[in-house]
Amino acid sequence: MAGTGGASGGALDVLCIGNAIVDVRAHASDADVTRLGLAKGTMTLIDAPTAEKLYSAMGSAVEASGGSAGNTAAGLAALGARTAYIGKVRNDELGRIFTHDIRAIGCAFDSPPATAGAGTARCLIYVTPDAQRTMATYLGACAELGPDDVDTALVARAGIIYLEGYLWDRDAAKAAFLAAAKASHAAGHRVALSLSDPFCVDRHRNSFRDLVAGHVDILFANEAEILSLYQVGSFDDALQRVCKDCQIAALTRSEKGSVAVSGDEVHIVDAVNVAKVVDTTGAGDLYASGFLYGLARGAGLAICGRLGAICAGEAIGHMGPRPEADLKALAKPALAAAGL
Amino acid sequence: MAGTGGASGGALDVLCIGNAIVDVRAHASDADVTRLGLAKGTMTLIDAPTAEKLYSAMGSAVEASGGSAGNTAAGLAALGARTAYIGKVRNDELGRIFTHDIRAIGCAFDSPPATAGAGTARCLIYVTPDAQRTMATYLGACAELGPDDVDTALVARAGIIYLEGYLWDRDAAKAAFLAAAKASHAAGHRVALSLSDPFCVDRHRNSFRDLVAGHVDILFANEAEILSLYQVGSFDDALQRVCKDCQIAALTRSEKGSVAVSGDEVHIVDAVNVAKVVDTTGAGDLYASGFLYGLARGAGLAICGRLGAICAGEAIGHMGPRPEADLKALAKPALAAAGL
Repeated sequence: MAGTGGASGGALDVLCIGNAIVDVRAHASDADVTRLGLAKGTMTLIDAPTAEKLYSAMGSAVEASGGSAGNTAAGLAALGARTAYIGKVRNDELGRIFTHDIRAIGCAFDSPPATAGAGTARCLIYVTPDAQRTMATYLGACAELGPDDVDTALVARAGIIYLEGYLWDRDAAKAAFLAAAKASHAAGHRVALSLSDPFCVDRHRNSFRDLVAGHVDILFANEAEILSLYQVGSFDDALQRVCKDCQIAALTRSEKGSVAVSGDEVHIVDAVNVAKVVDTTGAGDLYASGFLYGLARGAGLAICGRLGAICAGEAIGHMGPRPEADLKALAKPALAAAGL
Repeated sequence: MAGTGGASGGALDVLCIGNAIVDVRAHASDADVTRLGLAKGTMTLIDAPTAEKLYSAMGSAVEASGGSAGNTAAGLAALGARTAYIGKVRNDELGRIFTHDIRAIGCAFDSPPATAGAGTARCLIYVTPDAQRTMATYLGACAELGPDDVDTALVARAGIIYLEGYLWDRDAAKAAFLAAAKASHAAGHRVALSLSDPFCVDRHRNSFRDLVAGHVDILFANEAEILSLYQVGSFDDALQRVCKDCQIAALTRSEKGSVAVSGDEVHIVDAVNVAKVVDTTGAGDLYASGFLYGLARGAGLAICGRLGAICAGEAIGHMGPRPEADLKALAKPALAAAGL
């Protein structure tokens, strides 16, 4: 049932900022994904007419709240972290669904909805039989997110702010992003970024490099994204680069696990065995939830990585990106083993 | 991906008429259900303020098309039956979701949406750890369904029309229901009814008895519903009564299987073994899909019951009422064994 709000005036563990999106999810074949001109495993931005066209051709679907940073916030709140979220919905039915779901899991969300313009963003997600997800996103009301939506007092209360790279696709959101990073650093706190998607990195490589080197303390990226960021051919080459740019980096490699690095401290973290991988949507988002929760609790990097793996493992065992099992209970043994 | 429309002018196997509803589904504990004042395993009608209040207190949820007859229509279309649906949505986002999903599975749906008044109906579904579902339904735009929505030419094209008992809760829908039954019989076709819910039977017992005896050729009921209809204490007593009232009755008994009866012909049909029962929402609706598909293909009662059990077994193995697996493939061996 409904959780309690996560931001009743005191300190926050993490504030997440991202595109507030409702997922529209259906099963599809590899041939379907190819025929639609989508690149499997990635996110494509689409306009309103394309969204209509793709939806018309989509099979019977299920709707649920999503959005990369929204999923991470939901995972953090489920773990018990004091969490808030900033993002832009429209005051429509999908916007009410998004707002309900993130509050219900215990995350504070008080960004005023847009009262005009495009509807709440939606992401058409095609889940293929190999459990991989391919996404086509219509950003809709997310276009309205700008620097005015960044409550700097809220930012200053958060030990970590977490930003999704997808925000970089729109100038106003990028300005909001930079305003938030500035306010966080001014308060002596840390800025985390997820690179989100290899195509997103391709679109913005140079400015992402500047951002990572100049404004980001904690970086999340999967293998394709970090290779793209540095335009290198091997994971190890990327690893040697990223440890010079960021205080902490967490690099995820699907079933090969993840690598957590800080300066010359490197930890190789195994993935959690999952009986059946059902849907990989949200795996990276929930990895970030676990990792950031560990950081907020003062855990070492290896434990942070372990918590990330546990949460990612939960996410991929069911349809949909947000946690269904009791993440607190799943995380407990790892925290206890670390004396936390 | 999207199926083809089921009603391009020719004969239809089944026309389903019901409340067009989008489900809002969340996990809940038995204590939650009790605290909310809901009767576990049943459907309660709620007004708009109560729907708001319950939704506010509900955990993070998932939205998907539902509605009893809508689910049956989806199952029929998935089996390959020529299927159409009549029901009333509003021209809002949930209405577009409902319309998309039922068309996407291959069922024709051309009821014009309401352009004013209450929003598309929603059903808050609480799934408890035992996989049982408890429902609270706000009928919203379904209130607009009336006799004018019954396209008698469409009714006349359908070998069977299938009506959900839930329609009996509103006078205009009841009038639509009776108009449809009359048009079907005038065309020499058959009328099927699902009793829907024991509380629904309690609310309308006398008129349901008249309806069943006077207008219904094929009756679907679960054990609680048929006991309530006849106010008898044992399943066998109800069985002896129903075979005098209807040409065909299919009585479902959860894990005990079902009984299909026509005059003095009685078949005891086992339930399908399901590795893990996840969510019983839609079990009865999908049983009706399989059974009606069998009738439409000219199968005997035992095969009809077997097809019902197969489809119900598929529905309870995953969250949500509508089919996820390939029902055609699941039904094939039973049809082949019957030479169909």
